[in-house]
Amino acid sequence: MKTLLNEAQMAKSIIASLSDSLRNEVLNAMAEAFRANKNDILEANKLDLQNATSPKSTDKANTTQITPLSKPMLERLKLDSKKIDLMAVSLKEIASLKSPIGKITEGWENYNGLKIQKISVPLGVIAIIYESRPNVTSDTAGLCFKSGNICILKGGKEALHSNKAILKVLHNVLESFSLPKSAICFIDSREETESLLKEDKFIDLVIPRGGEGLINFVVKNSTIPVIKHDKGVCHLYLHKDAPKDMAFQIALNAKKDKPQVCNSIETLLVHKDFVATKDLIEVLKENEIKILACEKIANKFSALNLEVLKEEDFYNEYGDNILNIALVDSLRDAILHINKFGSHHSDSIITEDYSTAQTFLNEIDSACVYVNASTRFSDGGEFGFGAEVGISTSKIHARGPMGIDSLTTYKYQIYGNGQIRKS
Amino acid sequence: MKTLLNEAQMAKSIIASLSDSLRNEVLNAMAEAFRANKNDILEANKLDLQNATSPKSTDKANTTQITPLSKPMLERLKLDSKKIDLMAVSLKEIASLKSPIGKITEGWENYNGLKIQKISVPLGVIAIIYESRPNVTSDTAGLCFKSGNICILKGGKEALHSNKAILKVLHNVLESFSLPKSAICFIDSREETESLLKEDKFIDLVIPRGGEGLINFVVKNSTIPVIKHDKGVCHLYLHKDAPKDMAFQIALNAKKDKPQVCNSIETLLVHKDFVATKDLIEVLKENEIKILACEKIANKFSALNLEVLKEEDFYNEYGDNILNIALVDSLRDAILHINKFGSHHSDSIITEDYSTAQTFLNEIDSACVYVNASTRFSDGGEFGFGAEVGISTSKIHARGPMGIDSLTTYKYQIYGNGQIRKS
Repeated sequence: MKTLLNEAQMAKSIIASLSDSLRNEVLNAMAEAFRANKNDILEANKLDLQNATSPKSTDKANTTQITPLSKPMLERLKLDSKKIDLMAVSLKEIASLKSPIGKITEGWENYNGLKIQKISVPLGVIAIIYESRPNVTSDTAGLCFKSGNICILKGGKEALHSNKAILKVLHNVLESFSLPKSAICFIDSREETESLLKEDKFIDLVIPRGGEGLINFVVKNSTIPVIKHDKGVCHLYLHKDAPKDMAFQIALNAKKDKPQVCNSIETLLVHKDFVATKDLIEVLKENEIKILACEKIANKFSALNLEVLKEEDFYNEYGDNILNIALVDSLRDAILHINKFGSHHSDSIITEDYSTAQTFLNEIDSACVYVNASTRFSDGGEFGFGAEVGISTSKIHARGPMGIDSLTTYKYQIYGNGQIRKS
Repeated sequence: MKTLLNEAQMAKSIIASLSDSLRNEVLNAMAEAFRANKNDILEANKLDLQNATSPKSTDKANTTQITPLSKPMLERLKLDSKKIDLMAVSLKEIASLKSPIGKITEGWENYNGLKIQKISVPLGVIAIIYESRPNVTSDTAGLCFKSGNICILKGGKEALHSNKAILKVLHNVLESFSLPKSAICFIDSREETESLLKEDKFIDLVIPRGGEGLINFVVKNSTIPVIKHDKGVCHLYLHKDAPKDMAFQIALNAKKDKPQVCNSIETLLVHKDFVATKDLIEVLKENEIKILACEKIANKFSALNLEVLKEEDFYNEYGDNILNIALVDSLRDAILHINKFGSHHSDSIITEDYSTAQTFLNEIDSACVYVNASTRFSDGGEFGFGAEVGISTSKIHARGPMGIDSLTTYKYQIYGNGQIRKS
């Protein structure tokens, strides 16, 4: 671990001082190298897939016990030719971003003539801990490299061979440019992760991306600042005047478009005077969404035979075609509900009432608050950031969809001509 | 603790939604109340001073063991009529600041017509842990209130009576405006602090201000994000061409003006070809600065009988009229030294050489990097921020002198007209 951290430390100033055009050349070469080494990566991925379906203790390179993966997890782990092409496209897109480094975001002259400039600089060393999707390895390495940072990656144990093959490609390109391989570091055991999280002198930021267990583990054990990519318990609230068509379309989109992602809704709140609640429930059921209803709704529409939810269900991130529906008496009740049970990620209201919309926008304590739109837009790409660093559920440093700028900090460069301070 | 946190939680939305003009009215009333209640505060302070010089176990209000304080610590603890007037002035200054809340810092329309606005909002609940200076209590409470935040203050045990008297004044004013007292919370035991640091669901940020022990304790125990106000190991580097007068003036100012504060220098690095090293050392000695020299300097100017430093002295924050002096062979060596031994706070170079200045500005990894000026300017007031939240040695969220804006986060408010996402 000490060797790795020292090497990362040495690489830091080299990588930070590269020109943006050289960075882009390297990223484009990495993209080409993925295409050229497709077979090696696919071979390695096959091994991971075999282990994930029938783990063998004879696999010497991977001594950690792997439990068989569920089908959606296998889907995330599996690479094919097209997915590797997409990894390459993604690196080229990252190369095409405007450099986040060296931006003067503020500048002024103080009372005695010091010229103070606030300028964006790389954070330094960023550790990213994530789960089984191997493309995160190349995306994250690319984003950190573009922003002048060293990354220390810890991928899921299920993807170990795939990650190592991807890493080999990236390292070969770094070497071909005479750049240190330790610009992109990789660790593969949980023990290493635990000790990594205490290295606050060497590492500037930890970003855990994954389930609640992983996030809590990192928050509890890290002395390094953490930006969480936590769960999304998002809401849609239909105010009493919500236009019916818009309400139906957005409710369906926000739940059904991609139920497994964090910006999908888990709970639909409906004002008691909204006119089409019964129709809406029927439409949702026709779309194979399982409904869990509050008691009021279950009683009001007893003919629909709805399953009744328990209060703790409001905290759930189903990640599936399941939706809580609850009746509220007022806008105020909707706001209290969302701020209490939500994960402060993304919440939306449907209304044509001006003051109601303003109150919702101001009082919902979430990263993204929408009027008359689907919560599914909470995403770096949809926001127009060009690349997806992730979605922060922290309030510090970066909140909500994170652009590449969130991988930078700033320093003050101060130009004087002999100023001394008179206390 | 749970009661306190629940009350803080309830006060949160009330305080966040006040208008800036009402906030300012309250702050001005607090300033007036300090003047009107001066005697009560001074009486309480007397009690703290008595305890600090001869701690008694009969003081029932303060059961924590207090060890007698050093003279500079007593000076920091002691209030007088003028200091209380300054606390009032400081609150009035905070009231006069532009509101940090509700600023739209970015805004754009995405590809399908969503109007996305990034708007500054209060962080929520901020815990501040600090040492014996009682004026920090009113300053911090004022800054948090102005920025719409709830604060939980933990002051030094030595200042308990003073802090309680100050708090009583602040709470009376809050009550006179029918505002919840829990807008400004206070805890007074170390045990409470330890459990506070685990309350990441209720508290959004912890700011420890104090010595290394306090900072390390907080970093190690907190699951809440921390912004450190750590030690300042600052440097002045005299390049070979440094103009003599400027070099002497700035060296003296950066060390002697206020040696106890974090933006004073601890080490002076001198290029081997700088012409006036011997003169400078003599001037420093005449100014009663104790010199610890590297071996090269001690040998070169053996007639000066300089005490030789040990490598670990380069990590010291003396907070006193003591200065390390070391010879370096090049700009490169100076940069390596500063990035290795410094605390990434504030460092300055004296040079007339353009490229040397640029290299130093770019490669020193510190919050504030100066050319031809004293490091003593690293301070919210000197920067023109109008109020001093502190000086961050973290890289995340806020770095260097912190203006009141650093007590805010942002959210995205998104205006749609029925947009749904097509995956």
